[in-house]
Amino acid sequence: MATLPAVIKNVRVAVAGVGNNTSALVQGIAYYRATGSEIGVHRPVVEGLGVGDIDVVAAFALSDDKVGKDLHQAILAPPNNVPRLVPALPPAGVTVQRGLVDASEIARVASVLDGAEVLLYSAPSGRPDTARAYALAALEAGAAFINTTSDGIARDPAMLARFEEAGLPLAGDDLASQFGTSVLHRALLRLLEERGLTLVSSYQVNLGGTEDFRNLVENPNTKKQSKLNAVGSDRVQMAPLGYLPHLNSTKIAHLNIEAQGWAGTPVSLEVRLRVDDPAGAAGVNIDLIRLAAGALRAGRGGFLAEAAALLKSPPGTAI
Amino acid sequence: MATLPAVIKNVRVAVAGVGNNTSALVQGIAYYRATGSEIGVHRPVVEGLGVGDIDVVAAFALSDDKVGKDLHQAILAPPNNVPRLVPALPPAGVTVQRGLVDASEIARVASVLDGAEVLLYSAPSGRPDTARAYALAALEAGAAFINTTSDGIARDPAMLARFEEAGLPLAGDDLASQFGTSVLHRALLRLLEERGLTLVSSYQVNLGGTEDFRNLVENPNTKKQSKLNAVGSDRVQMAPLGYLPHLNSTKIAHLNIEAQGWAGTPVSLEVRLRVDDPAGAAGVNIDLIRLAAGALRAGRGGFLAEAAALLKSPPGTAI
Amino acid sequence: MATLPAVIKNVRVAVAGVGNNTSALVQGIAYYRATGSEIGVHRPVVEGLGVGDIDVVAAFALSDDKVGKDLHQAILAPPNNVPRLVPALPPAGVTVQRGLVDASEIARVASVLDGAEVLLYSAPSGRPDTARAYALAALEAGAAFINTTSDGIARDPAMLARFEEAGLPLAGDDLASQFGTSVLHRALLRLLEERGLTLVSSYQVNLGGTEDFRNLVENPNTKKQSKLNAVGSDRVQMAPLGYLPHLNSTKIAHLNIEAQGWAGTPVSLEVRLRVDDPAGAAGVNIDLIRLAAGALRAGRGGFLAEAAALLKSPPGTAI
Amino acid sequence: MATLPAVIKNVRVAVAGVGNNTSALVQGIAYYRATGSEIGVHRPVVEGLGVGDIDVVAAFALSDDKVGKDLHQAILAPPNNVPRLVPALPPAGVTVQRGLVDASEIARVASVLDGAEVLLYSAPSGRPDTARAYALAALEAGAAFINTTSDGIARDPAMLARFEEAGLPLAGDDLASQFGTSVLHRALLRLLEERGLTLVSSYQVNLGGTEDFRNLVENPNTKKQSKLNAVGSDRVQMAPLGYLPHLNSTKIAHLNIEAQGWAGTPVSLEVRLRVDDPAGAAGVNIDLIRLAAGALRAGRGGFLAEAAALLKSPPGTAI
Repeated sequence: MATLPAVIKNVRVAVAGVGNNTSALVQGIAYYRATGSEIGVHRPVVEGLGVGDIDVVAAFALSDDKVGKDLHQAILAPPNNVPRLVPALPPAGVTVQRGLVDASEIARVASVLDGAEVLLYSAPSGRPDTARAYALAALEAGAAFINTTSDGIARDPAMLARFEEAGLPLAGDDLASQFGTSVLHRALLRLLEERGLTLVSSYQVNLGGTEDFRNLVENPNTKKQSKLNAVGSDRVQMAPLGYLPHLNSTKIAHLNIEAQGWAGTPVSLEVRLRVDDPAGAAGVNIDLIRLAAGALRAGRGGFLAEAAALLKSPPGTAI
Repeated sequence: MATLPAVIKNVRVAVAGVGNNTSALVQGIAYYRATGSEIGVHRPVVEGLGVGDIDVVAAFALSDDKVGKDLHQAILAPPNNVPRLVPALPPAGVTVQRGLVDASEIARVASVLDGAEVLLYSAPSGRPDTARAYALAALEAGAAFINTTSDGIARDPAMLARFEEAGLPLAGDDLASQFGTSVLHRALLRLLEERGLTLVSSYQVNLGGTEDFRNLVENPNTKKQSKLNAVGSDRVQMAPLGYLPHLNSTKIAHLNIEAQGWAGTPVSLEVRLRVDDPAGAAGVNIDLIRLAAGALRAGRGGFLAEAAALLKSPPGTAI
Repeated sequence: MATLPAVIKNVRVAVAGVGNNTSALVQGIAYYRATGSEIGVHRPVVEGLGVGDIDVVAAFALSDDKVGKDLHQAILAPPNNVPRLVPALPPAGVTVQRGLVDASEIARVASVLDGAEVLLYSAPSGRPDTARAYALAALEAGAAFINTTSDGIARDPAMLARFEEAGLPLAGDDLASQFGTSVLHRALLRLLEERGLTLVSSYQVNLGGTEDFRNLVENPNTKKQSKLNAVGSDRVQMAPLGYLPHLNSTKIAHLNIEAQGWAGTPVSLEVRLRVDDPAGAAGVNIDLIRLAAGALRAGRGGFLAEAAALLKSPPGTAI
Repeated sequence: MATLPAVIKNVRVAVAGVGNNTSALVQGIAYYRATGSEIGVHRPVVEGLGVGDIDVVAAFALSDDKVGKDLHQAILAPPNNVPRLVPALPPAGVTVQRGLVDASEIARVASVLDGAEVLLYSAPSGRPDTARAYALAALEAGAAFINTTSDGIARDPAMLARFEEAGLPLAGDDLASQFGTSVLHRALLRLLEERGLTLVSSYQVNLGGTEDFRNLVENPNTKKQSKLNAVGSDRVQMAPLGYLPHLNSTKIAHLNIEAQGWAGTPVSLEVRLRVDDPAGAAGVNIDLIRLAAGALRAGRGGFLAEAAALLKSPPGTAI
């Protein structure tokens, strides 16, 4: 008698940070559940899980405009500015809780993760203590941890060792966008190299209107190193990030590449990329969550190796 | 006693067509011999041969401005407009001979190939009878044949069979540029797909000032199919080629890609590429010549499989 | 006793051609009437007339998909592809009539202009006989005539003389878009000149997806001359127009300008313009109609001098 | 007996600052004297003076790499990176003197202006005390003063009054480039407005590799206000200036304009400008010098009204 396949349960996810990236993730899950579409989906099924098979069971934020609100209300509160991706969004039934800022509140947060298998850390980059505290809360609660910021968590050998010992998956650092500037720039530089062109110079300008951009403009250093890790060339010059509020969640990048071809003849490439930045993050978070859940369920702890391609600064790259 | 490595002799090449592509090839060989540089070289060594290890031993043209001239003088004669790539170019010692236009002159051309191992057919696209006649001359003279035009030679099963039988290498059709619009467009579309984006639309505009462009504007059809073969997507719209004389040998391409990412959010990509078109051809011809010579010397005939990636329309693609 | 200002009556307009430009005009009038907005309006009031003070009283088309339909239904019928600019469009109460193709039907058309003060000729360029016939119908019916095509009507001295004799206004030829490639290109070249730069070269690429583009691709010559009249420089090279159906009513233009500044240093300008082409036409037609009505009502016939800046090829420019 | 026209003597100019702008000015004067060309010259003759009719008679710098050197040697010393604009440059016969940094050295500098009619202040922006001190030195020496920086000199009513009283011309503040981002951006916004489009948003990114850029990146505020004065719209968002050393003296700007046309339809404009930044400054300085000399010779003091269009922040604009 044939065995019925075991029913795969939805992933229980907690999110730390209710900013634009969480808004795009939560709205997108609702979009794909409602439409059944696969438009813009990188991998329809990962570890047996579809993009709709994610339940957000807990959420943490710091802003008074979000704490205490239903998650579906909080994700649309300013300064979030991702556009509405679904016509209507009924209450999620999850109330946003007050997040932590340092190690003193780890136990409290761990106790209210509500059985989450994965803790997605999706706060602004540049707050390493907060990132560490959430990682420790995940360890305490027995959840996988995903660090989407450029703060060094998975690159910290001590932290990585603790996840290995606990048999819990750890993914990080710094989310590579589904289709962002780094991905594109690196692909173009690689293409040049494959074709035998000699790189002369290159630059990259990134403009955006999210809080993430505002934060990066104020804390440029962490991100810059991570960016350089992602592009993989020291001949690329990074213009300072531009926070242009009117862009809202749209990111615009200008890339330039100057090279030399046969007999030293000049080759120039100008590129302008326009994407929704939080949507690009959500399109990767959806894979990280499913990979992390799969590893957790299979009992595989430590660095989530299959996530390396989805990250700008995996373990081993510079901090 | 150790055997000394056999000295590899320079490749003896005949060129049919003394246009811009031949100018860039011949000047580039001189450039690399003079400078020892590897700037812009795809593969420094192929089949044991460097980029300077090529001797052009015969050349054919139709224009009275070129026939009877020394090759180094003929490659700079109008309407050729590749810029000078080397400060000085002493006489080559090879006099340009009158080329053929149809099958009646195959024997004459074959008799003056002067021991060439490779016949590089580098005339304008859109003259299939001429292309066939040169291929037959190569067969008669026992030389490998490279068809850089979009005319169907390697895609013609009967012709391919004849080269197989004769044990002579055949490479074609339609040269992919070292770094041209098709290469770039295809790489970008592939990147999009790899990242899970959904293509909505795309277009490509190509502008140039060479005779090749002028000919393509007058015979757009052959090239268009070959272009589509090269891009590998039927969702790419090709704007008509623009012949803008002031561009000289510079080619400019404008690419646009519109796609959808996570939750259907829009992604736009604008690209402007600027290259020297004949230099891009020379950078590939230099590899085809060395691959063809290697195969000939090793006694391998028929389609030069290792050349497939260097061609827009290899055997099996649409004519 | 103060005199009350005379009530200015709405302009009665007949349109020959129910393509995209007419769609954008008719939908736009409805848009402004509904919203009271002045967004994107060049001149809110011309000759005492607002943009909503236009009544289309007759319309002519050739396609069976349009003739016999209500105007508001016909403007949305394929191949028209201007997007919907207003949420709902109740029936106009004007039935599209069969248009003319040559002089034999002038009397019929003149008899059904239904008291129109202005006949707006808005058919595809490249049908000079049809354009002439409509102009003669306007003369016969005592209406002002506006030729928005590049066919030579106002540039024909004999025709112009007939409108002068009849005391009827004539405006043409070839509509300059409210914000199109020619306007932009000319402004940039003028700016260069004003600043003392020396023009080296320039090109222009135009891409679109309307029937107008399809027609121009098939009849490139008339338009090209008119384009050159519009840009006002013989140093601008025009790439062939590209008909890319997926663009629908969007027009995309790529402009390049290469110049020299102080001490011969290079200056480069790359521009990409994206506009709705029919909307750009409607934004000028709305002014031409009001100017023509004002002149007619004031008894001023002949060339509508105040329209010269709205036209690419007014009388005196090359045909 | 007819009077011979008086021979107009060359203008005697002192320059404070031997950076790139001075290099481009001095090299350019030599270029035009040598070639007789008028390429890239805004106004061949101003106040009877050609672009070659300028003699630099004194120069001041602070760097040990420049002080004590012949002017023609100093202008090519790093970090200056304007390319060579003339093949050879014999010694100028003018030795660069040590400049001042504050008011204590005004008398010394004034005493060695060597009969200069015009003092061109061409140091980096962001050193208002230095700028003031040079202005006072010009007053003391009876020379006209040109402030090319964004520091508030001509906008300072007290300073302006002193030049008026002294009968000496004063021009400033902040040089508008011959063809720079502000000029172009303003022209495009004006064109939009003229055509009746409604501006939605706009941004500007400026990238460069000169010391001027490096200084501006460190002192962004002064320049930003001046930039906004120059563009003349509060709807333009300025991305942070990017100092990209490999660009050397090339400046690259990316402009974006989003607007609405007829019936609210979207209009987008993307522009990429590439210029030599110091050459753009020299092309305006050459006019300011001649205007200032003309006014001085005619006895007209105070603000040099005819210079207003050549300045970003003339008197009356915000500091």
